[in-house]
Amino acid sequence: PDAAAFAAAQARNAQLTKPAGALGRLEELAIWYAGWRGTPRPWLERPQVAIFAGNHGVVARGVSAFPAEVTAQMVSNFEAGGAAVNQLAEAFGATMTVHSIALDRPTRDFVEGPAMTEAELIEAMAIGWMAVDPASDLLVAGEMGIGNTCSASAIALALEGGQAQDWTGRGTGVDAAGLARKSETVAQGAARLGPDPDPIEVLRQLGGREIAAMAGAILAARHHRIPVLLDGFICCAAALVLHRAAPGALDHAVAGHQGIESGHARLLQALGKAPLLALDLRLGEGSGGALAIGVLKGALACHSGMASFAEAGVSDG
Amino acid sequence: PDAAAFAAAQARNAQLTKPAGALGRLEELAIWYAGWRGTPRPWLERPQVAIFAGNHGVVARGVSAFPAEVTAQMVSNFEAGGAAVNQLAEAFGATMTVHSIALDRPTRDFVEGPAMTEAELIEAMAIGWMAVDPASDLLVAGEMGIGNTCSASAIALALEGGQAQDWTGRGTGVDAAGLARKSETVAQGAARLGPDPDPIEVLRQLGGREIAAMAGAILAARHHRIPVLLDGFICCAAALVLHRAAPGALDHAVAGHQGIESGHARLLQALGKAPLLALDLRLGEGSGGALAIGVLKGALACHSGMASFAEAGVSDG
Repeated sequence: PDAAAFAAAQARNAQLTKPAGALGRLEELAIWYAGWRGTPRPWLERPQVAIFAGNHGVVARGVSAFPAEVTAQMVSNFEAGGAAVNQLAEAFGATMTVHSIALDRPTRDFVEGPAMTEAELIEAMAIGWMAVDPASDLLVAGEMGIGNTCSASAIALALEGGQAQDWTGRGTGVDAAGLARKSETVAQGAARLGPDPDPIEVLRQLGGREIAAMAGAILAARHHRIPVLLDGFICCAAALVLHRAAPGALDHAVAGHQGIESGHARLLQALGKAPLLALDLRLGEGSGGALAIGVLKGALACHSGMASFAEAGVSDG
Repeated sequence: PDAAAFAAAQARNAQLTKPAGALGRLEELAIWYAGWRGTPRPWLERPQVAIFAGNHGVVARGVSAFPAEVTAQMVSNFEAGGAAVNQLAEAFGATMTVHSIALDRPTRDFVEGPAMTEAELIEAMAIGWMAVDPASDLLVAGEMGIGNTCSASAIALALEGGQAQDWTGRGTGVDAAGLARKSETVAQGAARLGPDPDPIEVLRQLGGREIAAMAGAILAARHHRIPVLLDGFICCAAALVLHRAAPGALDHAVAGHQGIESGHARLLQALGKAPLLALDLRLGEGSGGALAIGVLKGALACHSGMASFAEAGVSDG
């Protein structure tokens, strides 16, 4: 971030017509954003939601409540404007792009071997990188991929340790028997890797194309100094890979929300991020990140639009 | 609320392209709103923010970090568009009206006697009632009044019991000595009333004109079937009067946020309301309620804009 813009934004904040600190997290959010955008009085003008879709070989193990065909069906729904994230992107003035990655070639079942080859991993990360419009001023990365909470749980277990059950939830709504299969699958996948695995190798071994693409997109945003609002459990698993690969890699990202997918709260703790919202979402597809655009929009409107004590002729206590 | 619209909204929600319940509190929020508006597929088109201002005799006791003149100064700031709530109202497409109530006649110091006469109470409540545009489709009631957290704390103590310290916080930022004076003032004011006082009489004895006006506005919204997003501690003290006067009086209201003014969490518990946001705000002036308009807007966009499984050709699991 730009230290001068950050300091100037802090100075501006201190002069606005409110008791010091009275806007709470909105103040830190606006100052953080100003630092990354390199301007002390920023507005949100070109937010971007990028949705990535991929399929997962591990679905054959019965770990999801929905069949794999739903991935492509939901991509059509995104393209037609019918999904939740379409409505949220529109409500908060964001453009939305959809990126299907080889839906006809699911990743390999990660219990049996690496989910992706190196070439597949790199291709998916590059698709994510290229999806980010350098002219945008905010990124929300979202996903669709039946089976991908299973993949995200395996990544979290491999990188953070603990028990498979700690990281495994019901995803789109798998039943108790499915949850037991899912947890066992997560445990077996992570067990294939030795101790202290390389984070990017964990992504290749246990991830999915849409998860790798999200990691690529978050990296690209960093390169372009585009702040990021993280979405739910799967997005945060992609972010965790970057966080473990390079400390500080997520300094340009804020947690948009905490969902109720089991493991998300723990994952946010691992990332050291406090969520802006906690409204019991468990949808993915960027919905929680997109909803948080409203909070950021409000924070920037206050920071950049309010009068100072001097301008307004208000006594400052 | 309209039971048929409520049921129709529930039925619609069940058909949308997402796992059942995956939008969490956004779903219940949209259905609640649909019920009150009497239409199964509502949009937010005319939200209104109404700000009421009043002055408090109790300020002479040194209970606030700011002098009483700031009330009128901030009203000018609202009218000129420079305050936080102006920016938030504009960001979320709300109209905003400002209602100063007899700023040159502070309420009586409530330690010494009733803050308002019956005529003053009724006038203030009527101003609140009349401020609500019957054509609006959402109300956020906000306030400005140096010393009004002291008044709100006394109302809460008189109606809910406990210790004065439980309900008394730093407001705009009073220091430790001021907080001790404030807490003592709250205790003395509430002690003037006998046990189980009538809630409207508590409002007259310990309230302020802007607090009475908010109560009147929330009542008017109920009359017009306009849903309400409650703001912070002071707004919730006004709402508490209605809640204790008539059970269910706040069924048309949702808690917009939980601030960090000491006592707000407890007050929300007394109201039985879970907040939509918790971002450490302590500004008042309707800011937290206005910020929550964004969440409601997102909820309604999803509910009313999403495709059904049948429309989108998506398998429903």
